[in-house]
Amino acid sequence: MVEPFAAVDVIKAKRDRRALTKDEIDWVIDAYTRGVVAEEQMSALAMAILLNGMTEKEIAQWTTAMIDSGERMDFSGLPRPTVDKHSTGGVGDKITLPLVPVVAACGAAVPQLSGRGLGHTGGTLDKLESIPGWRALLSNEEMLSVLRDVGGVICAAGDGLAPADKKLYALRDVTGTVEAIPLIASSIMSKKIAEGAGGLILDVKTGSGAFMSDPAKARELAETMVRLGNRAGVTTRALITAMDVPLGLAVGNALEVTESVEVLSGGGPADVVELTVTLAREMLDLAGITDIDPATTLVDGSAMDVWNRMIQAQGGDPRAALPTARESDVITATTSGVVTRLDALSIGVAAWRLGAGRARKEDPVSAGAGVVLHAKPGDVVVKGAPLMTLYSDEPARFARAHQALDGAVDVGPAGSTIERLPLVIGRVD
Amino acid sequence: MVEPFAAVDVIKAKRDRRALTKDEIDWVIDAYTRGVVAEEQMSALAMAILLNGMTEKEIAQWTTAMIDSGERMDFSGLPRPTVDKHSTGGVGDKITLPLVPVVAACGAAVPQLSGRGLGHTGGTLDKLESIPGWRALLSNEEMLSVLRDVGGVICAAGDGLAPADKKLYALRDVTGTVEAIPLIASSIMSKKIAEGAGGLILDVKTGSGAFMSDPAKARELAETMVRLGNRAGVTTRALITAMDVPLGLAVGNALEVTESVEVLSGGGPADVVELTVTLAREMLDLAGITDIDPATTLVDGSAMDVWNRMIQAQGGDPRAALPTARESDVITATTSGVVTRLDALSIGVAAWRLGAGRARKEDPVSAGAGVVLHAKPGDVVVKGAPLMTLYSDEPARFARAHQALDGAVDVGPAGSTIERLPLVIGRVD
Repeated sequence: MVEPFAAVDVIKAKRDRRALTKDEIDWVIDAYTRGVVAEEQMSALAMAILLNGMTEKEIAQWTTAMIDSGERMDFSGLPRPTVDKHSTGGVGDKITLPLVPVVAACGAAVPQLSGRGLGHTGGTLDKLESIPGWRALLSNEEMLSVLRDVGGVICAAGDGLAPADKKLYALRDVTGTVEAIPLIASSIMSKKIAEGAGGLILDVKTGSGAFMSDPAKARELAETMVRLGNRAGVTTRALITAMDVPLGLAVGNALEVTESVEVLSGGGPADVVELTVTLAREMLDLAGITDIDPATTLVDGSAMDVWNRMIQAQGGDPRAALPTARESDVITATTSGVVTRLDALSIGVAAWRLGAGRARKEDPVSAGAGVVLHAKPGDVVVKGAPLMTLYSDEPARFARAHQALDGAVDVGPAGSTIERLPLVIGRVD
Repeated sequence: MVEPFAAVDVIKAKRDRRALTKDEIDWVIDAYTRGVVAEEQMSALAMAILLNGMTEKEIAQWTTAMIDSGERMDFSGLPRPTVDKHSTGGVGDKITLPLVPVVAACGAAVPQLSGRGLGHTGGTLDKLESIPGWRALLSNEEMLSVLRDVGGVICAAGDGLAPADKKLYALRDVTGTVEAIPLIASSIMSKKIAEGAGGLILDVKTGSGAFMSDPAKARELAETMVRLGNRAGVTTRALITAMDVPLGLAVGNALEVTESVEVLSGGGPADVVELTVTLAREMLDLAGITDIDPATTLVDGSAMDVWNRMIQAQGGDPRAALPTARESDVITATTSGVVTRLDALSIGVAAWRLGAGRARKEDPVSAGAGVVLHAKPGDVVVKGAPLMTLYSDEPARFARAHQALDGAVDVGPAGSTIERLPLVIGRVD
């Protein structure tokens, strides 16, 4: 086969700030997937994209080319409207777990293809895998069957979906080219568009524990992704939400499942409930379902019923005891007063070091490891009272978690007021 | 071995416009040479360096680290002062061939480690290899022995000299990261400093046929390299010279050897003689030899004598007939008038396509292929008179050379004046 372009010419074009043409983008993604464009060539191109940017048209074409590298799912045979959600990831962000049952209980179908965690933010599949028997990997037929029978499914994205993205993501991870908005947006949206849901809500997080700590960058990413989705025929909206403080009180795999089940039982931390219901309203609106308040599904047991059937359909036992860590370690307040700050990134890194997350994608994670918070900003604490409990299977990890937590909590004098971001900071549609 | 840095952190630092520390640079070059920093990581770093630049201190450290990746030559035992020359390469640039014998004939020792050509500019070793029997590869002992006996040697740089540069250069070539002044300067200077001559003259070419066509960029490169050399204890100067028109009349391997021998015989094109003598004066000044005019060695036969001994010492027969191409093709003037422009790049590409150069470093070159010019800018031509003769072993190549030559020559009306760059445009010391 005679290649219509040379990789080095495409790299030089972007290096010299020229917009890539449709043909150049289609070729470079296809040739990279085929191995004709070498890893070292794609990494130079990724760095040039990171530093020199891409036009909206280039990003859209890049996304289309990545979708075209693999298969597309088709949910048009389902009797319910399909709607999907993606979060850019945060500390304690277990929202997918209660959200999918809530939205399914209201009558939409939610095909939620998720990933595993890398770094300080956890992965939805890692969390669900702490449930005995539950399996993430389904065939397309199994997935459709769970979706039809239960209304919601959370499973691993198959290898067939945007394989170019899979290869490129692994490369970006080791070459310092993750933090490029065109590449982040096209990576997320190529998979979400290929999944083929009719509507999509994006939860773009900002604050210390988010991937995009800068709110302006988070908004730019949200706007880029919303345009990409709508351009591709998927009605897409984004909420920009706060990630300066962990969501809820639990950070870890089984710990977050437990908290999610509390929410599905009508309890749980207020911020987790609020964000779940807010996102559910947006999704139902996208699905054209406006006659039901999703908050009711948390109190009438209908969301919990979907959860139980969803877990069982994938081999899990929703009533089984979850794994717990072998060791724990309590951190107490050194002064009395009001918690004025609780840094999300520090908590995320601590949970990661305790064993809840992985440094390399082939690493295992510990189901029981993590952090449970006993106080959050605005809460009054007395000297010696527990601020948080750390859980790990390996006691040696506590010291490394303590390092990450150095300076993570500020306690001010009694009566201190706190300034923090509202849970929902902005909206893009 | 525990690595003190992670490649991705070094890449991110440069991506985010931070100057790299000495330790980071030393590590990244060493780890790249050991294969711990992967090719795709180094290419992302090279692109970040290209787009974000390096401070003078970083470039100096990068150069030192590349030198330290291999061995250094030592000429301190020689009875003569050593002085070296490097050209950034141009079309018809055969100056090394007459220059080394001229400077050696005046009493300096010239250890000239050269390379092969890639792209439209020829390589010194490719040219000399058209001489029957001549071999480029010498052991260090053989090289020192030729240098001691003859005063000059032109041979291939051994694998031991700056191996990190060799690896990095091959990577830059396929990743669009050749055109970065910090990387060009450190690549050239790491090898030249490791060669260990006492003085160094740089011929930095500018104009269409040069690697640095922009004169401002050529000056920046010259200044960067001069500072690097002097900082490392090698007295270094640079001339910035014109490469808008080919040097001399011959472009090709054996064709350029023939022209060089003409110069050594006291004849040859005026520009080749002028640049040879100008560079020789600079080199002799650096060597502290001021009592001899190098131009005299071209007329008294002493430079030719060194040439003959130098070729013989490396197995060549200086009196043997050189290979000639099997086919030729004459291009004639389509109007009468004055040649006002003769584009160096077009001639270089034509010679390359005729077989004189290589597209990939493992390709062979044709000894006889190339272009001989019959008119240069300022010369009067009549319609139908030959402008140039193309030589190739494969007649099919003529059509491709013609394509490259489309628009390469302008012939203006009789009496036209021409504007062109002076041969020596600037000087840095």
